Amino acid sequence: MKKKWLIPLLALLTILAFPVGAFAAEEGPTNVQLQAGLNSAFTFLAFILVFFMQAGFALLEAGSTRMKNAGHVAGRTVLTLGVSALAFWALGFGLGFGNDGGNGFMGLTGFFVSGTDAAPSFDSLSAYDVPVTIMFLFHFAFAAISLAIACGGMAERAKLSVYIVFGILFSIVIYPVVAHWVWGGGWLAQLGMQDYAGSTVVHLTGATAALVATILLKPRLGKYNKDGKPNVIPGHNQVYSILGVIILWFGWFGFNPGSAVSAMNDGFFGYVALTTNIAAAAGAIFALAVSWMVFGKADIPSMLNGVLAALVAITGSCAFVAPWAAVIIGAVAGIITFFTAQWLERRRIDDPIYAFSVHGVAGMWGAVSTGIFAKPELVEITGVGKPGLAYGGGFGQLGVQLLGLVGTFAFVLVVSFIILGAMKAVMGIRVTEEEETMGLDMSEHGTYGYPEQMKLLADAEKRTLN
Amino acid sequence: MKKKWLIPLLALLTILAFPVGAFAAEEGPTNVQLQAGLNSAFTFLAFILVFFMQAGFALLEAGSTRMKNAGHVAGRTVLTLGVSALAFWALGFGLGFGNDGGNGFMGLTGFFVSGTDAAPSFDSLSAYDVPVTIMFLFHFAFAAISLAIACGGMAERAKLSVYIVFGILFSIVIYPVVAHWVWGGGWLAQLGMQDYAGSTVVHLTGATAALVATILLKPRLGKYNKDGKPNVIPGHNQVYSILGVIILWFGWFGFNPGSAVSAMNDGFFGYVALTTNIAAAAGAIFALAVSWMVFGKADIPSMLNGVLAALVAITGSCAFVAPWAAVIIGAVAGIITFFTAQWLERRRIDDPIYAFSVHGVAGMWGAVSTGIFAKPELVEITGVGKPGLAYGGGFGQLGVQLLGLVGTFAFVLVVSFIILGAMKAVMGIRVTEEEETMGLDMSEHGTYGYPEQMKLLADAEKRTLN
Amino acid sequence: MKKKWLIPLLALLTILAFPVGAFAAEEGPTNVQLQAGLNSAFTFLAFILVFFMQAGFALLEAGSTRMKNAGHVAGRTVLTLGVSALAFWALGFGLGFGNDGGNGFMGLTGFFVSGTDAAPSFDSLSAYDVPVTIMFLFHFAFAAISLAIACGGMAERAKLSVYIVFGILFSIVIYPVVAHWVWGGGWLAQLGMQDYAGSTVVHLTGATAALVATILLKPRLGKYNKDGKPNVIPGHNQVYSILGVIILWFGWFGFNPGSAVSAMNDGFFGYVALTTNIAAAAGAIFALAVSWMVFGKADIPSMLNGVLAALVAITGSCAFVAPWAAVIIGAVAGIITFFTAQWLERRRIDDPIYAFSVHGVAGMWGAVSTGIFAKPELVEITGVGKPGLAYGGGFGQLGVQLLGLVGTFAFVLVVSFIILGAMKAVMGIRVTEEEETMGLDMSEHGTYGYPEQMKLLADAEKRTLN
Repeated sequence: MKKKWLIPLLALLTILAFPVGAFAAEEGPTNVQLQAGLNSAFTFLAFILVFFMQAGFALLEAGSTRMKNAGHVAGRTVLTLGVSALAFWALGFGLGFGNDGGNGFMGLTGFFVSGTDAAPSFDSLSAYDVPVTIMFLFHFAFAAISLAIACGGMAERAKLSVYIVFGILFSIVIYPVVAHWVWGGGWLAQLGMQDYAGSTVVHLTGATAALVATILLKPRLGKYNKDGKPNVIPGHNQVYSILGVIILWFGWFGFNPGSAVSAMNDGFFGYVALTTNIAAAAGAIFALAVSWMVFGKADIPSMLNGVLAALVAITGSCAFVAPWAAVIIGAVAGIITFFTAQWLERRRIDDPIYAFSVHGVAGMWGAVSTGIFAKPELVEITGVGKPGLAYGGGFGQLGVQLLGLVGTFAFVLVVSFIILGAMKAVMGIRVTEEEETMGLDMSEHGTYGYPEQMKLLADAEKRTLN
Repeated sequence: MKKKWLIPLLALLTILAFPVGAFAAEEGPTNVQLQAGLNSAFTFLAFILVFFMQAGFALLEAGSTRMKNAGHVAGRTVLTLGVSALAFWALGFGLGFGNDGGNGFMGLTGFFVSGTDAAPSFDSLSAYDVPVTIMFLFHFAFAAISLAIACGGMAERAKLSVYIVFGILFSIVIYPVVAHWVWGGGWLAQLGMQDYAGSTVVHLTGATAALVATILLKPRLGKYNKDGKPNVIPGHNQVYSILGVIILWFGWFGFNPGSAVSAMNDGFFGYVALTTNIAAAAGAIFALAVSWMVFGKADIPSMLNGVLAALVAITGSCAFVAPWAAVIIGAVAGIITFFTAQWLERRRIDDPIYAFSVHGVAGMWGAVSTGIFAKPELVEITGVGKPGLAYGGGFGQLGVQLLGLVGTFAFVLVVSFIILGAMKAVMGIRVTEEEETMGLDMSEHGTYGYPEQMKLLADAEKRTLN
Repeated sequence: MKKKWLIPLLALLTILAFPVGAFAAEEGPTNVQLQAGLNSAFTFLAFILVFFMQAGFALLEAGSTRMKNAGHVAGRTVLTLGVSALAFWALGFGLGFGNDGGNGFMGLTGFFVSGTDAAPSFDSLSAYDVPVTIMFLFHFAFAAISLAIACGGMAERAKLSVYIVFGILFSIVIYPVVAHWVWGGGWLAQLGMQDYAGSTVVHLTGATAALVATILLKPRLGKYNKDGKPNVIPGHNQVYSILGVIILWFGWFGFNPGSAVSAMNDGFFGYVALTTNIAAAAGAIFALAVSWMVFGKADIPSMLNGVLAALVAITGSCAFVAPWAAVIIGAVAGIITFFTAQWLERRRIDDPIYAFSVHGVAGMWGAVSTGIFAKPELVEITGVGKPGLAYGGGFGQLGVQLLGLVGTFAFVLVVSFIILGAMKAVMGIRVTEEEETMGLDMSEHGTYGYPEQMKLLADAEKRTLN
């Protein structure tokens, strides 16, 4: 008797189940495809922001050097960007992020971003479904920033050809190796080194090469008196430098949050952007305050270096530390960069844009800082390494961080000395005294960057001599 | 008899229903999570665009002032950006967007963007699933723009320390209060005030503080003759100012469309971008035309102010008005800003970058304009307020808009007078005559922004004296 | 007997089918809506990047001209941006992308981006669900770039009014027609012309108008000696030009990848970004090398033109060619632009920013290059045209490409001659000799762009005369 109404009911329910299911199996791409599209667009945005940091470096460096070298210093950026784009495409990316067959030292596959030739290939390198082409572009932008930092130490006296030869070698032999160690599954990755966006990989690597260059090139003419005391050689345009730093701060929102390589994960990239921003702010204010106390004047270049040093330091730790720790990391970076810049200058290291203090010393501090401040909850989210000293994590992570920075520093120091030393012996790396006095715009390129203004300067100099 | 084929059929159908449903219950994130990710990435893009407007202000202000002050004027931007980032993080955001417990005046929770400390917390402030960290960054960028506008009125004569002290207080006591009134659920929000992206909240607030500063600081040396007639003190670099305005126009595509805080809703943000763009274009053309008629020459600074005034005016109304109304709003803004700038200058208000005419007067016009032009269909989409006068909405919305602008103007005027007046009495707000003549690069920072060019200027001055 | 357990089982299964279906029919937007939102945000990002290229052109052109014209040259950018925004909104977009009723020549609907007036209308123009407002903005940005290129040829001698009148006509009568032919379903689209992002539509069109302008305006005073030999008139600020080129390279990541109008499709836009980037790099390096060999110095302006020429050439072919071909296309563009620039200069074509060599000649090469290198797999993905000569595609596609470039060149040449010729006859297009000598900042705008520096230049000139 019961079955009489049960079976028609079942029939109705069964038929109703279809539209519900069918409606859900909606048109359009799948959720996995949508996530891939979103993460691809996000990572692409991060890439272009980091790419745009080249404009920041061009302005910062041109502004921090003299009028007679301005076209050369800025133009060099475009040249090294081109060199890096081709070298990293052909070889660097494969060496950095290819399969290393277990050697832990460098990748051995993926040259020419292989797979993209026949047709766009989307064997993702990441767990986030971002295609290899976009991962390549993102990592190329990082490699090009590291090279720009390295070139900073050469400003106002290196030959143009040095940038080409060293640019190629740096993009193949130096940067990819360190990148592989930490981000490509190499030995430091296996030890659990925490370097979210590259305090060590990008900044310390570039800065160490810059240090070697400043040492091998020797100081600029007129930088030191006979008694060894340094003279100030002010840059010709602070507005450029300031604009450059604002562009760099802006671009850093690609550098750090972009290293999430995903807009999903409950918007974790927003948290990274927050720590990045307040660290930069603290760096600006503390560096300005220190310069005010030491010099008696609020020195603008010191403030700018403070912003950059704080950004460099938080680059590695941005995803691992609490906001209060980010403020401390930024403030400390701003302060130590100020003092190390002074100290290095007195040691006859003539680093015109303070590449080693800003990117090297602060890069080291960034590496150390996660060993101290890495927070358990954030370590769990990122899945890299262990909590730091301040959270009872002991000295384990700090040790890994120190090993990573010492290993990177030593490797880059030695290889840069070999490369630049050989270049110095074979082709020469410095322009002549006459060329340096005339300015590299004229000596290396045959025209002044500011022809009308240089004529006024030449007139004024002539009048002074008369 | 019927049951014999009915039951096997039902069994088949039932089993078939599963794959359909199961296929639909696909892998990957849910649609709600995808929407949150997309809206987060979109709002982050908007944040960085508004952040980048700081570069625009640095260039606009440096270009509109003299060479001897250029490093100071541009460098001040980085300093106030840092001050604002920390003050708004610590207190401003909570005061602006925290829960006000019904007081309608200011928020009382959410200091230090609380919840982000332990681990990224995603108690969204918005209905769009954007995490609080990203909402904070977006609103910080707005607060920093408002402060940059306020500082514009102080250019070329205020002490550096003024920017620090006033910057902190503005970021805590002034901006967050107005933001709370209109966007944080305060009394103006409850009245239905329409201010989509901040003609009133951001621009009028900053401009009113700038007006107070210009009054308390008094005009620059040499601005007025003894008979009270103003002299033109031209800016030193129109290319900077022009580049600054292009950057600001560009950044405004974060300001206005970004205030949708969502890339969904049938792409409504694209409509907002459209009205924004044509308003700016109309502002450029009408301001240039007016200057051509009045001065007999097509004045570039007037055209630039026309672009900005149009953007300021459309900021509040961009989501509420038809495209033809956007053109009118932009054109009127360009024209009234031109004439009020002249008028204020004759009234001994020496506002070097015309902060009050461009951001204040045009901000007021923006507030009024939605009361006139708010379109029923768009009011429905945005869900704020009522249609305007032109659509038969009567004087209701116009009254709310007028109340909002008068309330904001009065509040900011009074509080700024108290703060800056107290600062004037206690610490002094203006450099000495000697310092002003020498230039603030040297007096406040100890170096020129353009050392090589300043030497040429000094030489020329010496020759003129001989 | 069997029915006893069968029917309860069926009942259970049927009931279970509902939650599975219901769970899948989850909350939030549909996948089609999410895709539309993502593609809209992506296309908006592309729009703002192309918009920002105006800053690049302003800097490139100002940097490549003299101090006395700098404010005018840069300020002109803002003016033509405004003119283009209104003219393309009112008429240009409809003529370019409206329904042509089968005429194949120009669209006849969609004026004032119709449908957006009543309320945002989302009759998508594209197959990608991007709303018409965003498609309009994206195409407006392209039209404004084409106009900026055209104006480049007029620099340092055209009256300001020329930019207004010609700007309106170019945005209505010239650009939209070519855009309709290739992208709006016109006759070249029907033939299968491949022009992914506008080597022909944007660059050749603008450059051809620039060529006509240079011819009708005649060379600048002092450009040619009496014997017809050209003099170098160096630009006043290479840093601007370099910054301009970095901004343009950056903006090109909106131009080319953005032309995918979608972040989906397995991230195809990333592949487009990759070919774009390595082509630009090859252009930089090959153009610098050629200048080094020919001039004996590594000429910075030549390198910059090489970057731009490579970007122009890859614009059309970026989605159709293999990476190795992109490198060839970029390198060849850098080289031919260098030599054609020299050749045109010797032919008394005084094109101050080399608009025709960089955008015209390289634009033609870009059109031809897909006829040679278009790869079958990529042609299939894009769905436009046929494979090129190098892949055994024969001369078919090459013929279409040649027809497209000849048709575009001829049309723009004739219409530009008519428009500018008529303007020359009616209103005059060139400033007087006196005005040109004084500089257009003063003659057209009544103030110098650099008042303090121009005073130094005037002093120096006076001293030279004494």
